[in-house]
Formats: sequence, C-alpha cells, structure tokens
Amino acid sequence: MPPVLTLASGSATRRQMLEAAGLEIAVAAARVDEESVKAALLAEGATPRDVADALAEMKAAKTGGLVLGADQVLEAGGALISKPESPAEAVTQILSLSGQTHRLLSAAVLFRDGAPVWRHVGVARLTMRTLSPAFVEAYVARTWDEIRHSVGGYQIEAEGIRLMARIEGDHFTILGLPLLELLNYLVISGEIEG
Amino acid sequence: MPPVLTLASGSATRRQMLEAAGLEIAVAAARVDEESVKAALLAEGATPRDVADALAEMKAAKTGGLVLGADQVLEAGGALISKPESPAEAVTQILSLSGQTHRLLSAAVLFRDGAPVWRHVGVARLTMRTLSPAFVEAYVARTWDEIRHSVGGYQIEAEGIRLMARIEGDHFTILGLPLLELLNYLVISGEIEG
Repeated sequence: MPPVLTLASGSATRRQMLEAAGLEIAVAAARVDEESVKAALLAEGATPRDVADALAEMKAAKTGGLVLGADQVLEAGGALISKPESPAEAVTQILSLSGQTHRLLSAAVLFRDGAPVWRHVGVARLTMRTLSPAFVEAYVARTWDEIRHSVGGYQIEAEGIRLMARIEGDHFTILGLPLLELLNYLVISGEIEG
Repeated sequence: MPPVLTLASGSATRRQMLEAAGLEIAVAAARVDEESVKAALLAEGATPRDVADALAEMKAAKTGGLVLGADQVLEAGGALISKPESPAEAVTQILSLSGQTHRLLSAAVLFRDGAPVWRHVGVARLTMRTLSPAFVEAYVARTWDEIRHSVGGYQIEAEGIRLMARIEGDHFTILGLPLLELLNYLVISGEIEG
C-alpha cells in the first residue's frame, strides 16, 4: 500500500504512534531551525499555542502530497522550556518544574500539496511531585540517552512517569501528537478507512 | 535489586507498564475464575467498581510479601463486557459499543503479607465512532491475536485507537492499571525512591 501521508518530523515517538495505529507513512524530516524560529516568535509576542502551531506548519509546508507537521512545546510559568542540551541542563529543567504544574502543547498541521487543510493543538497539564536534587540527578544519569530528545527532559511513557503527581489531558498529546483528532480527520476526509 | 513487588496478574501490558516505569517486579499470576466471580457479584447487585475492586483484591490476597492485584472491567449501558472468546464475539462486542460511550474501570489493590494496605479504582470514558460492520470485521481479523486478551475486544495502544471518537481519562487506567496513583503510594510509603 502507498503511504497515507508523509510525516515531516524526525521524532521516533511520532512515527511509532502513527505506525501503531496501523497507518502506512513516509518520513521526511524537515530542516527547521526551531530555536531561532521560537525566539523570533516569542519576541513578537506569540503565545505557546502560536509557537507550536507555527513550527508544525513550517515543517509540513516543506514537502508535497499529504504532509503532517508536528511540534510540541512545554510552557511553565509563562516561559517555554526546550529540549535539554546537556544532562546538567536537564537536571535544572526538571528541578524548575518540581512541585509545579506545566502544560504540554502538541500542534499538528496537515498540508495537501503545500496548503494547510487541517490543524489542531492539543493541551495537557502535568504536575510534578516535589523532587529531591539527588533523585533528579540519578534519573537524568540513568535516562539521558532517551530524555535528551524530549522537551522538559522527561519521558512519561518510561521512567518519567515517576516524576509526576498528576496528569490531566490526552496521552497522545503528551507524547507529542494529537493522534485521535488526526485519525478522525483522516477518516472523515476519506484518507483512511473507518 | 530484589523486586519491589509481586504482580498478581498474568497481563503482559501491566508487566510492561511497571517495567517501563523502572520498577523491578516479580510476577505470580493468581488463578481466579473471573467469570464465575463476576457473575456471582453481579447477581448480588455489585456495581462495576465493586466487581473490578473485588477481582483485584482476590488476585493480590493469594500471595505473600508486597503484592499487587489488578483487574479491569468494561461497563456499557449498565452491563459488563468481558474479553471476547471468539472473533465473532469480538465483532458483536465492538458493534454494540459503536457510536456509544462506555467506561473502563481499572482497580488495583496492594497487599502486604495478606492484608490490603492500598487500593484505587481509576475510571475512563471512551466514545467509539459509528463503525461499519465491514470495518469492524476487518479490524478483528487483522488483530485477533492481540485483542483476545482485552475487555471489549480492542487495544487503544495499537490500531484500536482508530475505533475511537473521544477519550476522557487517564491512559494508564485505559491500559488496565492506575499506574500514577500506584507509584505515588509506593513513593509515599518508602517502597521506591522519589
């Protein structure tokens, strides 16, 4: 079967989510300088929702056919938190979230031949337990190879669940893609069976 | 490291959830005639919550040390739906849920040396899209080897997500174990680091 869509994101988690749902997909990760775009948008007063949506759109607009762009941002106390660049930064990030509630916003934009045809931003709220520096340092040391690819420096689908006190919102949004809403659009528009 | 607890359930999904969270566990699946117990409890007027909780407790009470019992029931229109015994029954179950909202109740009971020390019942609400018989038959034919172990005959973590229009509630509860609440108890009681 030919692929239903092209995923314009290098995220292994998103690819796995789509494949688990039984979709045939192609992957063509777009080259977008996310940090520069994010900084420029924030300087213009963009909201976290705007930032996630704009990055998802930029990724999707770069390829032809039916293309899915996706992006996730983490917002805490009005600031956006990125993927950590070092274990030390991951420890700092997690400790800044400790005992607090933060939001994960996952944007998806679907393009058909260069024009946007569907978009959605899913939002989830997560509250971390109050964590000791020693616990966080040990967690980062054990899991760095996985968490370095995640905003906020944790993976809820693995040991990162142990950082959390409370989770509100859709699991797929937390993993980085509002899968249910995407699938419903693909069924309604006749791209996949339903 | 010695195991933190014994999982008194043969469910591969529950074992994977606990292991993904970084817990060392032992598994000792208890032999409980679930269908007979369920029928007896329902005849006595038990609620779906009571049924899930009682089955979780029965499983945990059969082993020594720190033991986790878990059970999940599916309630739709006041009736409980079990694991399907044949592909034909899975098709009938899914079509009976099509276009409707149902509840998944996941009970966990923790025993220490034969006495219950903690319990929780998580509840999630799922709404299926209106599905055609042909689509459901093809889904069951493709996935029978996996869905035969799931109440209601679908797996949300795989292609079963394509049956759903709306999901409200905790993902871990949907998978069959209220993991977040369990982990919080294990941290608070000093069984695991936090």
